[in-house]
Amino acid sequence: MERTKKFMLPETAIPTQWYNIVAEMQNKPLPMINPQTNEPLKAEDLFPLFAEELARQELNDNDVWIDIPDEIREKYKIYRPTPLVRAYELEKALDTPAHIYFKNESVSPVGSHKLNSALAQAYYNKIEGVTNLTTETGAGQWGTALAFASKTFGLELAVYMVKISYEQKPYRRSLMQSWGAQVIASPSMSTKAGRKIITENPTYQGSLGTAISEAIELAMQTPNCKYALGSVLNHVALHQTVIGLEAEKQMEMADEYPDIVIGCFGGGSNFSGISFPFLRHNLKGETHTRFIAAEPSSCPKLTRGRFQYDYGDEIGYTPLIPMYTLHHNFAPANIHAGGLRYHGAGSIVSQLHKDNLVEAVDVNQLDTFKAGILFARTEGIIPAPESNHAIAVAIDEALKAKEEGVKKTILFNLSGHGLLDMSAYDQYLAGDLSNHELKDEELNKYFERES
Amino acid sequence: MERTKKFMLPETAIPTQWYNIVAEMQNKPLPMINPQTNEPLKAEDLFPLFAEELARQELNDNDVWIDIPDEIREKYKIYRPTPLVRAYELEKALDTPAHIYFKNESVSPVGSHKLNSALAQAYYNKIEGVTNLTTETGAGQWGTALAFASKTFGLELAVYMVKISYEQKPYRRSLMQSWGAQVIASPSMSTKAGRKIITENPTYQGSLGTAISEAIELAMQTPNCKYALGSVLNHVALHQTVIGLEAEKQMEMADEYPDIVIGCFGGGSNFSGISFPFLRHNLKGETHTRFIAAEPSSCPKLTRGRFQYDYGDEIGYTPLIPMYTLHHNFAPANIHAGGLRYHGAGSIVSQLHKDNLVEAVDVNQLDTFKAGILFARTEGIIPAPESNHAIAVAIDEALKAKEEGVKKTILFNLSGHGLLDMSAYDQYLAGDLSNHELKDEELNKYFERES
Repeated sequence: MERTKKFMLPETAIPTQWYNIVAEMQNKPLPMINPQTNEPLKAEDLFPLFAEELARQELNDNDVWIDIPDEIREKYKIYRPTPLVRAYELEKALDTPAHIYFKNESVSPVGSHKLNSALAQAYYNKIEGVTNLTTETGAGQWGTALAFASKTFGLELAVYMVKISYEQKPYRRSLMQSWGAQVIASPSMSTKAGRKIITENPTYQGSLGTAISEAIELAMQTPNCKYALGSVLNHVALHQTVIGLEAEKQMEMADEYPDIVIGCFGGGSNFSGISFPFLRHNLKGETHTRFIAAEPSSCPKLTRGRFQYDYGDEIGYTPLIPMYTLHHNFAPANIHAGGLRYHGAGSIVSQLHKDNLVEAVDVNQLDTFKAGILFARTEGIIPAPESNHAIAVAIDEALKAKEEGVKKTILFNLSGHGLLDMSAYDQYLAGDLSNHELKDEELNKYFERES
Repeated sequence: MERTKKFMLPETAIPTQWYNIVAEMQNKPLPMINPQTNEPLKAEDLFPLFAEELARQELNDNDVWIDIPDEIREKYKIYRPTPLVRAYELEKALDTPAHIYFKNESVSPVGSHKLNSALAQAYYNKIEGVTNLTTETGAGQWGTALAFASKTFGLELAVYMVKISYEQKPYRRSLMQSWGAQVIASPSMSTKAGRKIITENPTYQGSLGTAISEAIELAMQTPNCKYALGSVLNHVALHQTVIGLEAEKQMEMADEYPDIVIGCFGGGSNFSGISFPFLRHNLKGETHTRFIAAEPSSCPKLTRGRFQYDYGDEIGYTPLIPMYTLHHNFAPANIHAGGLRYHGAGSIVSQLHKDNLVEAVDVNQLDTFKAGILFARTEGIIPAPESNHAIAVAIDEALKAKEEGVKKTILFNLSGHGLLDMSAYDQYLAGDLSNHELKDEELNKYFERES
């Protein structure tokens, strides 16, 4: 009997519905607040910014399952279902009794899970007659995904790319341009928000919060143009549940069930995607799986942030979101995991974390690259610096299982590949990378300034 | 009834044998010649250079099927079977009645088909007690494949990378280093061959022929070290037949059979891999499929080269190979399709071309990138500059089918993705790329110098 490495599903098994965990949470997230009215946000409040269907999904706390339109499923076929892979070689290198599985979202043509939501967002905007989109991107994974999604549904796209990533990851810029998108380094002089930030701090290398402000501002000032966000929000997490829904079926094929589920954590999109469908069974009391969000120690919102209402962007254009946050003015260190350089956690994960239903750990940059190199040399795939956080935690848990002498089943999400992040690996191998431990005084100064 | 986009096989359908076309050719390739003895080459003559089993495979003209060891099949599971994809969106953009399929070898973790032979070569060297390998690489696709294969089987590897590609494609160098290989820009000062070439022409940007000379020289001077080649030779083409063998089963799943099979052409590895299993049925008179090798117009060995005995490398360390060649001293233009910058065609394809069993066309650089961008914007995958040659010919044939108003079934091999070639796309989109038409006087000068 041959051993199976990749558990594959047929295209007909691409989920037909997304899973909306909010509808099944006992303690639902606090409502977002409209800062103009100080009232709980209504879907209509979001219509100027987002496609109406996306706004409705954002506030839907009632429907457990939401149908995926055929047009989106048809596009998902380009890369879905993605493989679930048993990491035999990594297990062997660690000499662990743990069984390690990873869901390989890096096989998407844009290199990450981000396409799961990009296709959905582009589709809903298209059918509502929108012609132009704006967005932000950190490392460029979300921007490349939305660039291809926009091209495939016939929309124009402008992307504000965090300046440090614009410089560190030039190939992702090229990718977006190859798919026809405009790319602007953020902070830029093209928006009021950008000009303000550049004026205050001319050498600032940008953050996701700043880029979001710029993208929102451009969308508000452009006719027939809406904004799209790649993480944090509920509708993004919703779209990403295709990851976990497929993984659930694939774990069944492998005749196992995860004791631990791990995802790296920026705003929550891939962590939510891999976790929520499994977490469902914890909510029902059927299972006791652990869920671990892997954060960078330089941007540890869940492990060290405050739970409070905060803006999703630097300037304060978004609604107030109930979240674990490092403060919307927080300027994260220039780590290579650009997709994790965000100050806040989405409101669903924040509530789940508050209720001890998900855990969080932070990992420093050098440990993440060490894990990534071991993974590349055993399993063959160069992981994205973001995904290296999940791998580091998976390795850690596998080593604990070895110490305890127990067989554990560990599942992590390989959110993307790192082929366009090779300069980071160069620096790591040359010994030129360092850690960026966040000091308490640094963390507190933003909140103190306010009070 | 949902339409199928990707035709997928289970891991159990990974071929258990490679297809050795030489055993079924009526006119077999002329023998390679040992330049020391002027006698037909014997397997033993190759033992100092290659693993013995590879040398035997090289000269095997008797066994139609050669078993794939389980250890290699186990590694193939990392990415095989690869998908066969129906390019619906490309068809729609071309408004063609043709059905276009591509075999997606770009899903390999190293980004191309090269891993099919790299794993086999590393394996045979390992079990014969070899500890070190040397090789050359053009664009870096072969070098990255052998770097991972060497790491996975526990061998040390030194790679001579053609200097122009070393500069154009730094991320492939990083990839090789991440997998633990040493990478040297060629021509280098580390070999007699390199020193000679640098002395004669200090600004020479290198070629595959030069890099092969350097890699062979290092292998001959290093204890317990052998050499590995990524194309041209019969055993490499043999290993690549897993591509066509899978595709044959997948075309059956699609209930179609190709009228035309297309591969880009450097030394022949991916073209042979996709073609030979289908060509088999032409040889038996069962089918009349056309096979088209897509060459760069700046390095057109099949369309404009001479059929004669020639060396496989610049200096003349290899046996004499019966091939279509532009001369082993030919210095190809610095096109971005570095993997196609080789002066000769493998002896099997050369013989098949001589016997009119395969066709060849040449395509200029700008047309290949135009095709690649259209493919990226429709099917979502950024192709390698090499693969763009196959896409350009596939598009051309699809447009001819449209003109003629006939339904044709076209299959091409997507040999690799271009995510590490984005600087080439940047240049193309900026209008900074040009064609390099090869002039007759340029082509003839190498042969004239000799006679």
